[in-house]
Amino acid sequence: MLEDTLKKMKKASVQLANADSHLKNKALDRMAELLKANQEEIINANKTDLEKAEREQLDPPLIKRLKFDAPKLDTIIHGLKDLIKLEDPANKVISKTLLDEDLILSKVSVPIGIIGIIFESRPDALVQIASLCIKSGNCAILKGGIEALNTNRILADIINQAILEVSSVFQDTIHLIERREDVHQMLAFNQYISLIIPRGSNQFVQYIQKNTSIPVLGHADGICHMYIDKNVNTKNAVAVTIDAKTQYVSVCNAIETLLVHADIAPLFLPELYKQLKDKVQLKGCKVTKTILPDIEDASEEDWLTEYLDYILSIKVVKSISEAINHINTYGSGHTDAIMTEHKDSVLKFKSLVDSANVMVNCSTRFADGFRYGFGAEVGISTNKIHARGPVGLEGMVIYKYLLEGKGQIVADYTGENAHRFIHKKIY
Amino acid sequence: MLEDTLKKMKKASVQLANADSHLKNKALDRMAELLKANQEEIINANKTDLEKAEREQLDPPLIKRLKFDAPKLDTIIHGLKDLIKLEDPANKVISKTLLDEDLILSKVSVPIGIIGIIFESRPDALVQIASLCIKSGNCAILKGGIEALNTNRILADIINQAILEVSSVFQDTIHLIERREDVHQMLAFNQYISLIIPRGSNQFVQYIQKNTSIPVLGHADGICHMYIDKNVNTKNAVAVTIDAKTQYVSVCNAIETLLVHADIAPLFLPELYKQLKDKVQLKGCKVTKTILPDIEDASEEDWLTEYLDYILSIKVVKSISEAINHINTYGSGHTDAIMTEHKDSVLKFKSLVDSANVMVNCSTRFADGFRYGFGAEVGISTNKIHARGPVGLEGMVIYKYLLEGKGQIVADYTGENAHRFIHKKIY
Repeated sequence: MLEDTLKKMKKASVQLANADSHLKNKALDRMAELLKANQEEIINANKTDLEKAEREQLDPPLIKRLKFDAPKLDTIIHGLKDLIKLEDPANKVISKTLLDEDLILSKVSVPIGIIGIIFESRPDALVQIASLCIKSGNCAILKGGIEALNTNRILADIINQAILEVSSVFQDTIHLIERREDVHQMLAFNQYISLIIPRGSNQFVQYIQKNTSIPVLGHADGICHMYIDKNVNTKNAVAVTIDAKTQYVSVCNAIETLLVHADIAPLFLPELYKQLKDKVQLKGCKVTKTILPDIEDASEEDWLTEYLDYILSIKVVKSISEAINHINTYGSGHTDAIMTEHKDSVLKFKSLVDSANVMVNCSTRFADGFRYGFGAEVGISTNKIHARGPVGLEGMVIYKYLLEGKGQIVADYTGENAHRFIHKKIY
Repeated sequence: MLEDTLKKMKKASVQLANADSHLKNKALDRMAELLKANQEEIINANKTDLEKAEREQLDPPLIKRLKFDAPKLDTIIHGLKDLIKLEDPANKVISKTLLDEDLILSKVSVPIGIIGIIFESRPDALVQIASLCIKSGNCAILKGGIEALNTNRILADIINQAILEVSSVFQDTIHLIERREDVHQMLAFNQYISLIIPRGSNQFVQYIQKNTSIPVLGHADGICHMYIDKNVNTKNAVAVTIDAKTQYVSVCNAIETLLVHADIAPLFLPELYKQLKDKVQLKGCKVTKTILPDIEDASEEDWLTEYLDYILSIKVVKSISEAINHINTYGSGHTDAIMTEHKDSVLKFKSLVDSANVMVNCSTRFADGFRYGFGAEVGISTNKIHARGPVGLEGMVIYKYLLEGKGQIVADYTGENAHRFIHKKIY
């Protein structure tokens, strides 16, 4: 029963929350060692999954993501070594306030507790997520894609073996679930689980959001934009647009819509067309089509579509304000970029675009935990609470308030002759 | 239509997010002036509500909370003046990282956007919440209790008049809704509203949590505990217990269950009984009843009950571990206290009690935004993401990432001969 596991995890979570950094790093180190030592078994398990996937004729990109080979394992081990070097986000004093003589309020970072994470085919995600949870002191319920069943099983087994060799404090901290029914149950257990992180398709994330009262961190859509301002280096703007669209099309931070200022469109669009037409299907608004008559029409629906494919919708705008308004209306608040050499445009775009990642003169593809220097990420959030944008270790902790006194009572601080609070920040 | 209002608010929220601190403070100052100038009209409107409440024979504590008189207005105006002095939480640079030459990542605090706040009878909550929203740069949809309809209307009118006199940037930022249907609609508009804060009864908060996919900040239960350790100054422990139970019984941070170490129980409980028996109904476990035979039995259900009344359940425990385990099992993660003179007990309690507020040698009643020095609070959260404990201005902002470059593309940072990131923290 999942509930029995969760009850054990809840008790374990309190102990794990207090595990010291050294011990947690030792567990990560042992994970790296055992993964390397079991390389052959892991790759064999993955072969079983790959063969099944091929028999069942799954999509080639999915099969590609499913593949777990020696180079992938090396990347993972390298990632674990990097994670060890990062600062422990838990049990840090955030602030201290003297409320009164001998009455001190501390705000201290603590792990969230139990996090439920549901991810699709990539089995390397399992290691990455589990290691982030160990480092931040959180227990994790993990549900991987059914197509990666054998790979996920062996990875979870190795991880559990490794951390338990280091200390019994890691007992009941990482738990793999495999059945759909378990996911449904998990979504209902709000008394144990404090956060759900779903990683997958738009539909999947929306389904999770609608079927749980547990807070959900993540993003459904990634409708990202590039806006080409009127003062721009055309050559550079074309290069960045191509990178943002084609460097990896099936990811959330690739652009879906290009907005171009009317003054630069006649110069910029033909140049872009020349370089992209063989690779990317372009769709344009009416004005775009006066410049690029050969491309398809873009409709209202295109502005709302995350293609995740070699397709790009293009709209010509009269001003930066129209571009910003388009982004705030049709975008998903994920990642949006401007290419400009105009300082006022930079300021306007940075302050008025309401997105997790606002890029100025660079590709939207930089919006990523590794590239931002977080070591790793559990996902990218378009939430406007807790954590927004790529979520690394900092997003996996919350805080508690500790108030330490010498027997003070509130009655003495109310009514006439009340004691007054000092409220002096001391840290 | 609520959606039309929300569309306007969404546009307004982007402008408001960039309003400067001086302007927001000016709006708060004008609010204070106009509230004072309209004191008589406000009190008259409140009289209409009070008369209706009395005619309908509402509960006396509810009628008490509904009352809005000159001293209450003065407190509110004083609160506004205090709020003006607090630091603006928005548009602060949180960190800066050099990802590479000329590629700088900034993390900047920004308002959340549109917050929906539903509160019960106290009309002063309306002013407090609206002013916190203005100060932090958030738009607010406010729904007050039906019994305070007239008072809420005049307060909302005055607030809107005041802020609009200061600047048109405050247009469409504060909106009062009155109908239940509007609340239902509001809960469905996750494309506009980023956070719901419900303030009210357990049932009410649970209802909200179950009926929206918008993140909800707050708390349903406040099952708070006081644990009396074996090494304790009995007199002081009795005084703090009485304060925590009786200083204001109908609030979330009053204790519902008292846990007493078996070694001190024979000394402590009779003393507590002597001072509390006429005022508070005591219910005890079997061991408690061997010491206080006259009190009622406490059952399993008592450990799960938030009385919000002059009732206290008592359990004798064999160890601090049993006390902590009881708190983590039956508590609501709100506020829990220990009275002890033993350093190890302090350490254990602070690290192992998984609650928003952990109090050592002082009353649970201190868990409050004003007492903590936050100026005011929008509520107390038992969530384990975003904001926990009393939530002041800091809980009303999130951040966005700004990445500013000179035309960099991700393709240059991948594959062989890839550029390497610097990831140097510069702020």
